[in-house]
Amino acid sequence: MTSPSLNPYDSLTPVTQAAYRARAAANDLAPLPRAEKDDALAAIADALEVRTAEIVKANAKDIARAREAGTSESIIDRLTLTPERVRAIASDVRDVIALPDPVGTVVRGNTLPNGIDLRQVRVPLGVVGIIYEARPNVTVDAAALCLKSGNAVLLRGSSSAYESNTALVRVLRDAVGGSGLPADAIQLVPGESRDSVTELMRARGLVDVLIPRGGASLIKNVVENSIVPVIETGTGNCHVYVDAAADIDMAVDILINSKAQRPSVCNAAETLLVHQDIADAFVPRALDALADAGVTVHADPRILAYAPQSKATVVEAHHDDWETEYLSYDIAAAVVDDLDKAVEHIRLWSSGHTEAIVTTSQAAARRFTQLVDSTTVAVNASTRFTDGGQFGFGAEIGISTQKLHARGPMGLPELTSTKYIVTGDGHIR
Amino acid sequence: MTSPSLNPYDSLTPVTQAAYRARAAANDLAPLPRAEKDDALAAIADALEVRTAEIVKANAKDIARAREAGTSESIIDRLTLTPERVRAIASDVRDVIALPDPVGTVVRGNTLPNGIDLRQVRVPLGVVGIIYEARPNVTVDAAALCLKSGNAVLLRGSSSAYESNTALVRVLRDAVGGSGLPADAIQLVPGESRDSVTELMRARGLVDVLIPRGGASLIKNVVENSIVPVIETGTGNCHVYVDAAADIDMAVDILINSKAQRPSVCNAAETLLVHQDIADAFVPRALDALADAGVTVHADPRILAYAPQSKATVVEAHHDDWETEYLSYDIAAAVVDDLDKAVEHIRLWSSGHTEAIVTTSQAAARRFTQLVDSTTVAVNASTRFTDGGQFGFGAEIGISTQKLHARGPMGLPELTSTKYIVTGDGHIR
Repeated sequence: MTSPSLNPYDSLTPVTQAAYRARAAANDLAPLPRAEKDDALAAIADALEVRTAEIVKANAKDIARAREAGTSESIIDRLTLTPERVRAIASDVRDVIALPDPVGTVVRGNTLPNGIDLRQVRVPLGVVGIIYEARPNVTVDAAALCLKSGNAVLLRGSSSAYESNTALVRVLRDAVGGSGLPADAIQLVPGESRDSVTELMRARGLVDVLIPRGGASLIKNVVENSIVPVIETGTGNCHVYVDAAADIDMAVDILINSKAQRPSVCNAAETLLVHQDIADAFVPRALDALADAGVTVHADPRILAYAPQSKATVVEAHHDDWETEYLSYDIAAAVVDDLDKAVEHIRLWSSGHTEAIVTTSQAAARRFTQLVDSTTVAVNASTRFTDGGQFGFGAEIGISTQKLHARGPMGLPELTSTKYIVTGDGHIR
Repeated sequence: MTSPSLNPYDSLTPVTQAAYRARAAANDLAPLPRAEKDDALAAIADALEVRTAEIVKANAKDIARAREAGTSESIIDRLTLTPERVRAIASDVRDVIALPDPVGTVVRGNTLPNGIDLRQVRVPLGVVGIIYEARPNVTVDAAALCLKSGNAVLLRGSSSAYESNTALVRVLRDAVGGSGLPADAIQLVPGESRDSVTELMRARGLVDVLIPRGGASLIKNVVENSIVPVIETGTGNCHVYVDAAADIDMAVDILINSKAQRPSVCNAAETLLVHQDIADAFVPRALDALADAGVTVHADPRILAYAPQSKATVVEAHHDDWETEYLSYDIAAAVVDDLDKAVEHIRLWSSGHTEAIVTTSQAAARRFTQLVDSTTVAVNASTRFTDGGQFGFGAEIGISTQKLHARGPMGLPELTSTKYIVTGDGHIR
């Protein structure tokens, strides 16, 4: 037959060329058994340790540039790779080796009435594009998870980590190639400009899914402009609802843990809702505990009423506070008439990440978990448990806040699709 | 608290108003137990039978308008509702009653090392938008499947079926409302223009998923322009590969069944690939059988060489033929050097719907199923089995050809998302 010759490398942009190479690599990766992928992951972990100096040296250039640009110390800290941190990243890769390979898992299977055997099996998604911000450890985490699940990955990191990412990807590709797998399974998307993001978003058919990880504006841009399917991650306007029947000590502990244990992450609480019947007993305790934790309270009028008797910093809440993901030592707070009003508030304002109820009432717990539709609903537990590691997935590529495909913490199975295999003996309809 | 007043009905367009009403209905539907949803479905089936005359009368207006516009008889046939067809639609609704409710199914669950109980349970997607063409039976099918799975549905049918759809949705809403469920769970999207499709595609946050069902241009429009997540359905450029080790009688039967049993559907075969070692024995038999079935063959040079000795209508294949979904009594055909070349051809041209291999070789079957990445890979079975009914799903909302969320025939579970329920005793991190 006269098959058309496809020479994609002649006339395409660097990003599209990278996507074609990723597609070819994905075809090679898909049928690989676990052992070959695990060997490549072991080679990656070893190479990260052997070539630590090279990585730290490249990272130093990013740090120097960031300091010149007057970047804040907290962001510089997130950008920094020390030998210890590189070792920790290598250790994370070894943890991925220990995880089961989702590819080939039979999701369901049965014999149809006509004798056909039907099996639905997990297969890699194919080519996964990750668009992410500063932290260079994401480069290795994402590459390792994609490789383990048989996917080729296109990594589009931030320009502030360009030297670090370039060095890391060079190490990863050398290790993968040295293991006999296609080095193009892991590629850094060329170009530091936003154009490369735009090209990724147009590469439908070459790229199977885009996963943006980072700030709200990055995610919004990808969600609204990509014609490649997207998995939306990360925004967490999480609520703690203290029910009329709550154990007050437990409620204070869960509130403080949810808000203040690590305020900068998406599963930290951003709004406290209190049933009016427990407000007199709970709110003063809560305000003092929040004050001890250094948290500023953005309060509705009914919470404000308790402020004069409290040592807490309490300010009046404005409209925006109910939808704000502070990611800081701030919390919005309101008294609600009952559980259904709490649900109503959550439906209106929540980003659908995680909401917790504190209650001793079985009926309240049941109603809250039925009515609240977020990736995770916690009963008498901190919002901070919404996490791939906490859930026992061993690793996490992100936390999906959308309803399609994956919702909540995404582990290795969430990086797969499925296909049906139909086996007959000459069956026709 | 000073909760903001949300009066969406004041200033919004009719489509967005409908979406807000659907969102409210979805909130009410989500926690409903199966029995209440089944009662509403039974009321729908009864109402369709009781009010058949009203439906057929409305349909007659669409038919008359279609005839005036010079619409082809085959399309008019698809548009037509007779009393028998309405009874069949009612019977389909009763079949949905018999299906298990996916909502509440525990997908996975375990106790974490810290004692927290983790459960992942199926929940409705929320608001499902279906954009579809002529056939008014889709109106009822889609509404019944969405209702059963706890979703509110926004139905955007074609203007050619406007009177029929309006009558059907009136009957459905009356039945649902009469059962005590929110009538707004089922709405026909107002407006016959393309603007209403555009508005649906922009309604991110109100509409959870759009499912286009229809021709390639409809699907392409939705996929490329929607910021609401989309499930792509339907295009089927399906292949039958006859391996060197095929049973020739079986291969002819599967080829003819795949191509000619019902050529107008997405799981019909569009391309035949033949291993060169079996071409002399198979191709003449295949050409004669295709001729008997009335199929025109669009052949590559190596198939063309067999044409002079055949009674078949054989024309030269052009570049476009390899990617064409004929949906007619036409098939593209080529001889390939080996199985890997067949896989290469499929990777290049297939829409990823269904590919079949005919072989007696276990090694060939295994390699083909490993390397071909389509929703369905059939071994010694017709491509025509890729179907929700055939797979035993009991019903089908469409066949997804994308990799995210659902792939292949979509039954009720594919109309759900999941949420995690985390239950502790005051657990904090």
